[in-house]
Amino acid sequence: MTKTRDACQALDARDPLADMRARFVLPEGVIYLDGNSLGALPKAVVNRSRQIVEQEWAEGLIRSWNDAGWYTAPTRVGAKIAGIIGAESGEVIVTDSTSVDLFKLLMGALALRPGRKTILGVQGDFPTDAYIAQGVASFVGAEFERVAADDLIAAIDEKTAVVCLTHVNYKTGFIHDMAKITAAAHAKGALTLWDLSHSAGVLDLQLGRADADLAVGCGYKYLNGGPGAPAYVFVAKRHQTAIGHPLTGWFGHKVPFEFAPDYVPAEGIAKMLTGTPPMLSLAALEAALDVFAGLDMRKVQAKASSLTELFIELSDERLTRHGFTVASPRNAAARGAQASLAHPEAYAVVQALIARGVIGDFRAPDVARFGLVPLYLSHVDVFDAVGIIDDVMETEAWNTPAFRTRKAVT
Amino acid sequence: MTKTRDACQALDARDPLADMRARFVLPEGVIYLDGNSLGALPKAVVNRSRQIVEQEWAEGLIRSWNDAGWYTAPTRVGAKIAGIIGAESGEVIVTDSTSVDLFKLLMGALALRPGRKTILGVQGDFPTDAYIAQGVASFVGAEFERVAADDLIAAIDEKTAVVCLTHVNYKTGFIHDMAKITAAAHAKGALTLWDLSHSAGVLDLQLGRADADLAVGCGYKYLNGGPGAPAYVFVAKRHQTAIGHPLTGWFGHKVPFEFAPDYVPAEGIAKMLTGTPPMLSLAALEAALDVFAGLDMRKVQAKASSLTELFIELSDERLTRHGFTVASPRNAAARGAQASLAHPEAYAVVQALIARGVIGDFRAPDVARFGLVPLYLSHVDVFDAVGIIDDVMETEAWNTPAFRTRKAVT
Repeated sequence: MTKTRDACQALDARDPLADMRARFVLPEGVIYLDGNSLGALPKAVVNRSRQIVEQEWAEGLIRSWNDAGWYTAPTRVGAKIAGIIGAESGEVIVTDSTSVDLFKLLMGALALRPGRKTILGVQGDFPTDAYIAQGVASFVGAEFERVAADDLIAAIDEKTAVVCLTHVNYKTGFIHDMAKITAAAHAKGALTLWDLSHSAGVLDLQLGRADADLAVGCGYKYLNGGPGAPAYVFVAKRHQTAIGHPLTGWFGHKVPFEFAPDYVPAEGIAKMLTGTPPMLSLAALEAALDVFAGLDMRKVQAKASSLTELFIELSDERLTRHGFTVASPRNAAARGAQASLAHPEAYAVVQALIARGVIGDFRAPDVARFGLVPLYLSHVDVFDAVGIIDDVMETEAWNTPAFRTRKAVT
Repeated sequence: MTKTRDACQALDARDPLADMRARFVLPEGVIYLDGNSLGALPKAVVNRSRQIVEQEWAEGLIRSWNDAGWYTAPTRVGAKIAGIIGAESGEVIVTDSTSVDLFKLLMGALALRPGRKTILGVQGDFPTDAYIAQGVASFVGAEFERVAADDLIAAIDEKTAVVCLTHVNYKTGFIHDMAKITAAAHAKGALTLWDLSHSAGVLDLQLGRADADLAVGCGYKYLNGGPGAPAYVFVAKRHQTAIGHPLTGWFGHKVPFEFAPDYVPAEGIAKMLTGTPPMLSLAALEAALDVFAGLDMRKVQAKASSLTELFIELSDERLTRHGFTVASPRNAAARGAQASLAHPEAYAVVQALIARGVIGDFRAPDVARFGLVPLYLSHVDVFDAVGIIDDVMETEAWNTPAFRTRKAVT
């Protein structure tokens, strides 16, 4: 016998993060289970976004690059993210998109390991990680090799320049063991590059303790920075002097406003910058990150585990009969803040759920994915969501042509 | 004898663009002559910025990628820019920063001209153009060669893969002859790549008529898209099938939301995309571009010429005695929408002017740069600005330690 709604309410009553929900804007009548695709709007962003447009841009104009701190924003926001992922403040900077940042770090990693030609990844990682690795490989004559996750450690060898992994799988929520894989890579002289897009903001990440070399991550999922928020780059202090990359734009120059004829990289993490940052998007991300100030990430991860555990427990009892199978790891320690269910009609089911106010998303070919964000969801939300899934299946509400029609973004 | 203030008022009275100023927010007591660094805020952006945060993100959440047209924004905004630069609508897309886009196109150009190893530029172009060319050259074994502008055409030869130029020089406003240089490059089998950052939005650009191959440009200067607004890429239709680049992220994939394991480029200009676009910044740019709807760019360029001509005429009469020399071309047809003055104390002078409400900027080592944006400046503004420069020099108001102290962003 699984938990009742009352039991879920009791769990919420002793949730140490319960008051975080008040810091977000969430629409009425919606249970939002897609914060792993686009995080909800933190209330603080509303005023910050008005301020940067209506005061700093309108009134300050060009002066705001100095006076409103725009120029130092990539470093300042990077330091905030460092605190969330267990890195030092000078190890993270905000710039570009996850894809562009992956490119910089893969190129940088190959140059740090001359003579080694292999970028090693696993099958089923987030596609852009693979696409970028393929772009790098084809343009510089490297090799991009993918193995099954179970075979990864055995596949690392003296040809491996860098092991490039999505830390938490976007489809299943499976967490790679960062410390173990990093140690195995280091034992063979290889580097590690972690895509933290589905980890940062919900897990107790410890990049320093895991001895990670390089990482990237996006700002718009669990960090709640807004649609397409800028991404970030992590380079461990020990690599910052030697690393280089070919996207040598003026914001990564040692003294950009001397307009010197030749490129000289900035010192430290600032060399990872390229062009002028999109300040409206960056300011929103900065304000969004204030939600994390002083937050104990162990508590955040513990609540994520509790929510996903509840979802799986309820699914086992109420959704198996509708043909769903759990596509996420059953071991909570190996699972991020999401619960995924496989179903042959997953696309139409997700559309029907959205129409009922339960917003998850579909991941091809057959996964319904539910992000269970600890900062703004409760155990009761999970209970109610599973109830609505059960009802949508029971009534076959999903079984209409409208819900089967694919949209551009799923 | 130069023009009086009354004569300037008469010019403004018959200015066909006079009513455009009402579409911008400009602070009281300021003559803003730095729209070539950060364009002023178009009024339409205020509501659009609130709408995307407070409605589309807050209420629509992930659904807005489909329902609010976020997903198609890079193409849609690209088509708007195409109309401003004399290109076809499927030839321009908005993505990343100017620096990142330059990288993509330089890599693409080298691959389109196999066997040719030279990227040819001119001395004194905007630094990030050179820095990126150096990054490309050092990572792929190409060569980046810079010659004096006068020697450019003679320097194009069978080793030249691409001629990469800032169309309008950021410091002097000098305009390269796009059609002539393109023809010379094509005669030798080379491509042209134009950085339009200081051209688009103030000149009657005709990329199609000039037979240009490739171009990039930033969104935050004369296009008024806001601080660090996304940049754009132009690829002439005839190159779109063959061109490739190594920044092969998921937004440039043929079917991103199939999450296929291997990269397949999108058809047409969409293959130039890489990561998820920063939507808050992109939405501001889109709203800003509505200012240009239906605008005759010949009238815009004519007014720019009239403003810079007036500035130079007044400078000759009133500022030469203070040690200023005109650093912009005296031939209006070879000059963008800026007038630059060289002065050994240019840095402190610019600071003193900012304190008096005349906002220009400094470009190392000795240039005071004044952007004379036709959409929101009048001839009277120019007259008054020169008067204030005259006064600041006459009273030596610039000669204080505070005004000599360099800021991070100049």
